[in-house]
Amino acid sequence: MNILITAGPTREPIDAVRVLTNRSSGQMGCSVASAASNRGHRVHLLLSHAATTKAPEGELTTQHFNSTADLDHLLDRHFEDTDVLIMAAAVSDFIPESFTEDGKLNRKEGATNLRLNPAPDLVAKLARMKRPGQIIIGFALEPSTEMEERATRKMREKGLDAIVANPLETMESAKISGILLTADGKRWEAAAELDKAAFAEWLLDHVEDLSSRSVKAC
Amino acid sequence: MNILITAGPTREPIDAVRVLTNRSSGQMGCSVASAASNRGHRVHLLLSHAATTKAPEGELTTQHFNSTADLDHLLDRHFEDTDVLIMAAAVSDFIPESFTEDGKLNRKEGATNLRLNPAPDLVAKLARMKRPGQIIIGFALEPSTEMEERATRKMREKGLDAIVANPLETMESAKISGILLTADGKRWEAAAELDKAAFAEWLLDHVEDLSSRSVKAC
Repeated sequence: MNILITAGPTREPIDAVRVLTNRSSGQMGCSVASAASNRGHRVHLLLSHAATTKAPEGELTTQHFNSTADLDHLLDRHFEDTDVLIMAAAVSDFIPESFTEDGKLNRKEGATNLRLNPAPDLVAKLARMKRPGQIIIGFALEPSTEMEERATRKMREKGLDAIVANPLETMESAKISGILLTADGKRWEAAAELDKAAFAEWLLDHVEDLSSRSVKAC
Repeated sequence: MNILITAGPTREPIDAVRVLTNRSSGQMGCSVASAASNRGHRVHLLLSHAATTKAPEGELTTQHFNSTADLDHLLDRHFEDTDVLIMAAAVSDFIPESFTEDGKLNRKEGATNLRLNPAPDLVAKLARMKRPGQIIIGFALEPSTEMEERATRKMREKGLDAIVANPLETMESAKISGILLTADGKRWEAAAELDKAAFAEWLLDHVEDLSSRSVKAC
C-alpha cells in the first residue's frame, strides 16, 4: 500500500521567533512510519520541524513542515497517490494573528492580547475529496473521562474511516493506551500502556484489514 | 571553572496540550556546553525538553526544563556554585493566561483572545544577586538593522557582564554571525556565518579571558 503518515506538532508563527504549538513529540507517527516501512509498504512521512523525534531510518521518504498551511500544501500534493492516510500529527486548531511590526513582541509594552482564529480542518477537507478505496485514520487526543464519545463525534463530523482515541497523557509519553473506533461502529482496545512501537504494529494490523475490506467493497 | 549553560526554548502552557514557545533549537547552548566540557570545565547544562538538539555526550551533567518557572527554579538552585553563567536559552518574554476548563481549547467556539502577561526577567534577577567574580553572559537575538544598539541596551538594563548580539536568522540555523559586547565597552566580532561549534570555541576564548580578569579584580 501507499501510506501517507503525518507526525509531530504544527507551529504557527506569532512573530519572527515565537510560535503557537503543542507538546507532541512526533514519536507515535514516526513509530507507525517505521513499522509500515518494515512491513514493505511504500511510506511517505510528513514530519514536523519541531518534532523531538528524528525521522526513522530505512526505506521511506520524509518531508518536513512547520505551519498548518505548510502541512496543508504537502497533503494536497501527496493525497492523490495515497491508499491510507494516517494523521498522527498534532495540527493546530487555531492560527494566531501575527505581530510583525519590528520583528518581535516587546515585553516592555506590557500585557497584550493575542487573537486566535480557528484553523482550517485539514483532515475533514481530505475526507470530502477521497476516492472509493482510500482510507483516512485520524487521532483524537482527549481527556480520559470523555475520550470515546469525543473521538466518535470527531470521526463522524470529519468523515474519517477510523480514529484512534487516546488520553491527554499520551503526549510526550513513550507509551499509549489507545482505542480504535471505526465508522461502521466497531471498537478495538489495545493493551494498556503499550510502547508506541508495539502500538504501531497493533494499529497496522487493523489498518491493513480495513484497507483490504475497503478495496474489496469498491 | 564551574559553567552553567542554558539552551533551547521555554514552553509556556496554554492548555493541556498547547504551548507558547519559539523556534530555538538549543544547538548554540549545546555547542557551548560540549566545547566547555572538552576544555575541562565543570559544565552543568539546563536544556529544554522542546529542544530538537540532543544533550551532548561527555563529561557534563544535564537537567531538563519546560516552562520559564521550571528554568527559574533550576537557575536558583545552581547559580550559587557557578563561576560563569551562559544564558543561551530562548526564555519567553510572555506567560499566557491558561485556559484550563475542559483540558483543551475548542475550535468550534470560534476566535478567541489569549492574554499574554510579561514574564519575569530571569537573568536580570540573577545579575542583581551575583557575587564579585561571578560572570553572566546573555544572548540577544535581534533584527539585524538595530542589533548592536538593542543588545547593548539589554546588557546594561539586565546588568550582564557581556552579551552575544546575533540576528534573527540565527534561530534554527546551523550557523551564527555573532558579536560579543562587554559591560566595559569592548566589542569583538566573530567571523561571519561560523558553524555554531566553531563560534562556541571563539566565545569560550573570550569568556575564559573575561573570567580571569574578573577573578583577579576581586
